[in-house]
Amino acid sequence: MKKLDPRLPTGMRDSLPADMLRRQYAINQIASTFERFGYEPLQTPVMELSETLTGKYGEDAERLIYFAQHARSEEQLALRYDLTVPLVRAFAQHEGQISLPFRRYQIAPVWRADRPQRGRFREFFQCDADVIGVATIDADAEVVNLMDSALVSLGFDDFAIKISNRKLLTGIGVYAGVEGEALANLYKAIDKLDKIGMDGVKKELIQGGIPAESVEKLITMFESVQQGDTLGIKVGLERLEALRQQLQGITEAEIGLGELKNLFAMLQSLGVADQHIEFDISMVRGLSYYTGPIFEAVLRSGDPEERVGSIGGGGRYDDLTGLFRKQGSLPVVGISLGIERLIVIMDNREMYPSSLNRTVVQVLVAVFNDTMRPAAMRFVSELRQNGIRAELYLGPVNKLGKQFAYADKKGIPLVALIAPDEDAQGLVKLKVLSSQQESTLARADAVQRIREFVR
Amino acid sequence: MKKLDPRLPTGMRDSLPADMLRRQYAINQIASTFERFGYEPLQTPVMELSETLTGKYGEDAERLIYFAQHARSEEQLALRYDLTVPLVRAFAQHEGQISLPFRRYQIAPVWRADRPQRGRFREFFQCDADVIGVATIDADAEVVNLMDSALVSLGFDDFAIKISNRKLLTGIGVYAGVEGEALANLYKAIDKLDKIGMDGVKKELIQGGIPAESVEKLITMFESVQQGDTLGIKVGLERLEALRQQLQGITEAEIGLGELKNLFAMLQSLGVADQHIEFDISMVRGLSYYTGPIFEAVLRSGDPEERVGSIGGGGRYDDLTGLFRKQGSLPVVGISLGIERLIVIMDNREMYPSSLNRTVVQVLVAVFNDTMRPAAMRFVSELRQNGIRAELYLGPVNKLGKQFAYADKKGIPLVALIAPDEDAQGLVKLKVLSSQQESTLARADAVQRIREFVR
Repeated sequence: MKKLDPRLPTGMRDSLPADMLRRQYAINQIASTFERFGYEPLQTPVMELSETLTGKYGEDAERLIYFAQHARSEEQLALRYDLTVPLVRAFAQHEGQISLPFRRYQIAPVWRADRPQRGRFREFFQCDADVIGVATIDADAEVVNLMDSALVSLGFDDFAIKISNRKLLTGIGVYAGVEGEALANLYKAIDKLDKIGMDGVKKELIQGGIPAESVEKLITMFESVQQGDTLGIKVGLERLEALRQQLQGITEAEIGLGELKNLFAMLQSLGVADQHIEFDISMVRGLSYYTGPIFEAVLRSGDPEERVGSIGGGGRYDDLTGLFRKQGSLPVVGISLGIERLIVIMDNREMYPSSLNRTVVQVLVAVFNDTMRPAAMRFVSELRQNGIRAELYLGPVNKLGKQFAYADKKGIPLVALIAPDEDAQGLVKLKVLSSQQESTLARADAVQRIREFVR
Repeated sequence: MKKLDPRLPTGMRDSLPADMLRRQYAINQIASTFERFGYEPLQTPVMELSETLTGKYGEDAERLIYFAQHARSEEQLALRYDLTVPLVRAFAQHEGQISLPFRRYQIAPVWRADRPQRGRFREFFQCDADVIGVATIDADAEVVNLMDSALVSLGFDDFAIKISNRKLLTGIGVYAGVEGEALANLYKAIDKLDKIGMDGVKKELIQGGIPAESVEKLITMFESVQQGDTLGIKVGLERLEALRQQLQGITEAEIGLGELKNLFAMLQSLGVADQHIEFDISMVRGLSYYTGPIFEAVLRSGDPEERVGSIGGGGRYDDLTGLFRKQGSLPVVGISLGIERLIVIMDNREMYPSSLNRTVVQVLVAVFNDTMRPAAMRFVSELRQNGIRAELYLGPVNKLGKQFAYADKKGIPLVALIAPDEDAQGLVKLKVLSSQQESTLARADAVQRIREFVR
């Protein structure tokens, strides 16, 4: 057989064990937070029928979808592009077996044939949690609380979850007297407030064909809510009230502001940290399917290595299930955490617990010689039965120094050894590699000592 | 947008939460067994370059591979067909970063466009553990021990791990004086011993063109090792010795038998249960890449619902890494557990712990009325901070009876309620749904009581 260069497709990668242990830690923290909020795991297949995915994400996005097929069937298949459309498809398909509200999470890879860039991959994980069937704002408050708790569970504190509302944005359009393409330009300009500042927005608005008088009104309004410190639930409630006075009589705006007021009050009851929440009128979010409150988590970090964009997002999309449901749509609100970006920052900041080693192995059982191998085998089995992750030194017996060096190189913290003299007395020798401390113990005591050490 | 029927591709499925919780339980038991033996997680991408997969599995298998592509690239991609070729590819690619021996596990889906059948899917999970870089039999003993422990960790006891050796089979070919196509027929006949019995095998051998004299010799030999009770390590050692005497002078057979003798002795030292091990000369295993000891786990069950074939397999394949390594091959031995089949049997036998509910939710916090919602929100947050998986009743406030019925239907064991009177006194009402037992407790005591109940 021809020898092959071992290669991967463009934009794909392997995760070797040390990386995987960190990934698993992060994913487990998020999954257990999701479960603590009552969200349940759902698994959908990697491939969907092409018709399920096409026409859902817009033209630019659709160009990134991977398609698949096999010789035996006419079915056109596609690899999932996100976890939202599969959720909506799966829910509609199994609705009879599901009681509402349906809280589900899914942590799984998706595929996008994006231009390869540093830290951007074509296979990457998404972490989604959504609740189907609740039209009231307590559901929105729950998923914001959930996003906050998941980030906190990973050790983050210097982040803000920016909150706005699509209904409010629609109301602002009415306020400015713009519609159609000009409305899209208005949103685009608002979205840039962070980057180009108030003067920049003003210029964009005028270029976008919005009448000078409207632009003045808009700028006054933005200034009233975006100046000074914007962080905090209480600050948010104040700004919402200020906006309410300016947008009085515009139904969409009033509804949107009412929902946000409710949402902020509920976040207070749920005990979400004040400095994690920010009302941000300039936050628009790209996806067209949002219909109510929208959220976006960003890191408040000065480190240029950590300018990764948003680390989470979400919102309410009350119309999407209608794509698959004959009976019309059901309300949905959900969030998605940017797990790949979070892992980059966690690596950069070394945010992993000290108990997380670069190997799963807690103790190496060395082999003194071939005669002593059966004793070593009995002892390694005893350790495993006691829940200790134990490796037996395999292969031809090497000098003990080599076996200790192997453990050290691999990052295994402990070595156990049964030499002939010790075995005759039922003893085990234990060495802590970091301190070079050695002790000789009865077997049962050794098991106990190792358990305590690795706990 | 056109409304779509929510459908899945042929042979694919969703796992709804109640199913997922059982799947996760089984997978976690296996993963933690793998880690207890020092096997580390590796993740490879779902797609490989086509050239990595083609030409590795034989013609029939290759017809089942799914191929994929996207508009932006000329790369020919394929969805992985198993976890073995990706392991070998990944190892060769990252060898410089890996210390030997390399013990890795991977629990992940693979894709095969097989004919759809009851219980057979085109996307299914494999659970593999392999060790690269050890030529000696202690590695084979370790993976057999590992397969045994994983099955035991799931609660299985009525299984046998059948063991044989490819070198022994080659030696038997020499013994019978057959080679080429006749040798393939010999293996096929041996493989059927279980199904067609000794007379059937005899007939097949003669039809397969093996001389009558050789057939007599073979039958005598098979009878000496396959009659009577074949289960057990000690029985195996006896039969290996009987075979050794018959096959004396045939180098391949002697090497194979020596390896097996060693393997059985080590299984004894490792404390593997005697009745889980069986030397079975009629076990051949299909894959062509095995070069030494081979293993196959089967259930010893009379229930026709449980005739699922093998529930695990594996063996030594010392030549496969050579496909990707310029420096030649490294020895590998590994096992794979039939997780999908195991789950079918676990469902059939209800082998899940009683603590595994059909929902993750441990307590529902009911909402008395809109005024009391903030108190309910504060309490649900307190529960979650204490590690309790707590759901808040969402949506318009329903009669309490409805909220209790919802919890009951969903399988949530506890309901907590804060009514106005209780709130004023700092109290919480708790109800155990199974016993209908109610109690009223101080908040902190309620948290403690719930923790104890769900532990």
